Amino acid sequence: MDANNIVTLETVQKAASTLSGNVVITPVQTCNTLDLLSGRRLYFKCENFQKSGSFKFRGAFNAVSRLVSSYGATPHQLQVVASSTGNYGCGLAMAAQLHGVTAHVVMPTNSPVCKKRTLLSYGASLTQCEPAAQDIAQTMKQVQDATGAVFLSGSEHPDVIAGHGTMGLEILQQVPNFDAIVVPVGTGAMLSGVSVVIKSLCPEIRVYGAEPEVANDAARSLSSGERCTFPRFPQSIADGLNGNIGVVPWTYIRSNADDIFTVSEDEIKNAMRLVWERMKIVVEPSAVVGVAAVLSDSFKARAGECKNVAVILSGGNMDLDKMPEYLQM
Amino acid sequence: MDANNIVTLETVQKAASTLSGNVVITPVQTCNTLDLLSGRRLYFKCENFQKSGSFKFRGAFNAVSRLVSSYGATPHQLQVVASSTGNYGCGLAMAAQLHGVTAHVVMPTNSPVCKKRTLLSYGASLTQCEPAAQDIAQTMKQVQDATGAVFLSGSEHPDVIAGHGTMGLEILQQVPNFDAIVVPVGTGAMLSGVSVVIKSLCPEIRVYGAEPEVANDAARSLSSGERCTFPRFPQSIADGLNGNIGVVPWTYIRSNADDIFTVSEDEIKNAMRLVWERMKIVVEPSAVVGVAAVLSDSFKARAGECKNVAVILSGGNMDLDKMPEYLQM
Repeated sequence: MDANNIVTLETVQKAASTLSGNVVITPVQTCNTLDLLSGRRLYFKCENFQKSGSFKFRGAFNAVSRLVSSYGATPHQLQVVASSTGNYGCGLAMAAQLHGVTAHVVMPTNSPVCKKRTLLSYGASLTQCEPAAQDIAQTMKQVQDATGAVFLSGSEHPDVIAGHGTMGLEILQQVPNFDAIVVPVGTGAMLSGVSVVIKSLCPEIRVYGAEPEVANDAARSLSSGERCTFPRFPQSIADGLNGNIGVVPWTYIRSNADDIFTVSEDEIKNAMRLVWERMKIVVEPSAVVGVAAVLSDSFKARAGECKNVAVILSGGNMDLDKMPEYLQM
Repeated sequence: MDANNIVTLETVQKAASTLSGNVVITPVQTCNTLDLLSGRRLYFKCENFQKSGSFKFRGAFNAVSRLVSSYGATPHQLQVVASSTGNYGCGLAMAAQLHGVTAHVVMPTNSPVCKKRTLLSYGASLTQCEPAAQDIAQTMKQVQDATGAVFLSGSEHPDVIAGHGTMGLEILQQVPNFDAIVVPVGTGAMLSGVSVVIKSLCPEIRVYGAEPEVANDAARSLSSGERCTFPRFPQSIADGLNGNIGVVPWTYIRSNADDIFTVSEDEIKNAMRLVWERMKIVVEPSAVVGVAAVLSDSFKARAGECKNVAVILSGGNMDLDKMPEYLQM
């Protein structure tokens, strides 16, 4: 990897300066019921309250901001492009709009309607394609050829990963003592950024990933030592986690992740109902895989000694009309 | 009215001491989208995060606490009873449990299942009856005769009203400047308590009620100058507001309320979707009538000059499975 492209504690701290005043310092909430059910003290970092409805705004804002700085004084001539299962597209669209930059987003047809609507409401242009890696790559190339837009990858770009890492800095300030942090894994950009911060500052804190069983590319990668991917995206209700683990994130996850827990679709549904009913906050299915993980028997078996656990609730963008489907087990 | 039973700024301040450390100082949140839609700056007091899932815990805790104090050293021999459309029952059940007191609650059969479940989870006993004033009175009498429980009315008891009034004290501390406050009205106990505080400390702040058009007993009372009630409860989706305005609350509302806004069922549904989607918090239909009110044309016409408006989101107890019905307009 190019040494300039490495994500470090310093690049995350720099990102935190860039984001200062532009992101929500999201609250950390607790819930007695979930503490009781999990048998430990849980600290929930509520990125569902972040701008654009998820943590993705952090990385997107950092990347766009640095691109604009390097480009000079005419950001309105700039165009950016990325593919996304939804939330990164929304974050990029909002970040681009705030910088006066045009954004193009390629999104699978089966992404939630609310994410498409949100993206369009921030003035981005949307191109849809089949939910498969090859189709996305082809469509991306077409949009890039037609527009000349700069590609800001949501999984691979070091400025995006560093932006996401700022959550790690915030949590260390907000939660006095914790033994472990559980982070949802889709492309792994969030887990990478957060893990760099935690392992730099508090290497004794365990860094855990959580993902759907049906989209277990990160868990299989970590156990085999080789990056595994799905040629056609899985269909978990945790729609934000159906993408493949990225090449760059994998290099950090391989070094920094202590374990990756997988959870069933029913465990995700159960966790979602608990968070909605007990914490009274709106979280999307992808956001609760960490909750499902800390409630699981595997967690008790493999991380039972962790008494104080930070859990990232990654976003709150979901189609409310799909609620019955999400609640049916 | 008996002078000892009057709700004053002092009785509310005393309630605040009693509640200190026992209630959640609920956060005040803002939302750019709702500011834009309403054309004013809105401050949402999030009582959906209150213990037992609604503001009702405040009044219930204060009343039980004072009853226990006056009763002496054996609260486990005490029993309390009340009727409720749901949230007051949950608040009373939790408050009683915390004091080691047995609670009995009479609830209409059509109250939300989640409220019945919550009440039972706090160890209270539940008796159901038809949703009509006469049936409730009869059933209450039967339970009282059978148990000898002390009646702690959710609408009429001055300790309950004073407990609810503590929200007014908190908002005045949390929001630097506001021109008006909008409070949902069911029995009017919340509006009474809050209005006493606001009109005592900042009489220039407008105190507004909000209620469903189909349950407009408070609005009709205020415009006619006579307390109006429905013999059989209305059937608004804002289930917590279907009860009649109380005798005691009416005495405060008549003096203190500047206006009462009514909203349609569709306006309630629209407000609920906005709060869920944009604020990412779970609120029940009754909680958003204030939001619906500030978004309405009537509000623009009758309160347009109020630029900074506090709005109480009263609770978050709802049957998630009913979401499709709540979203369908």
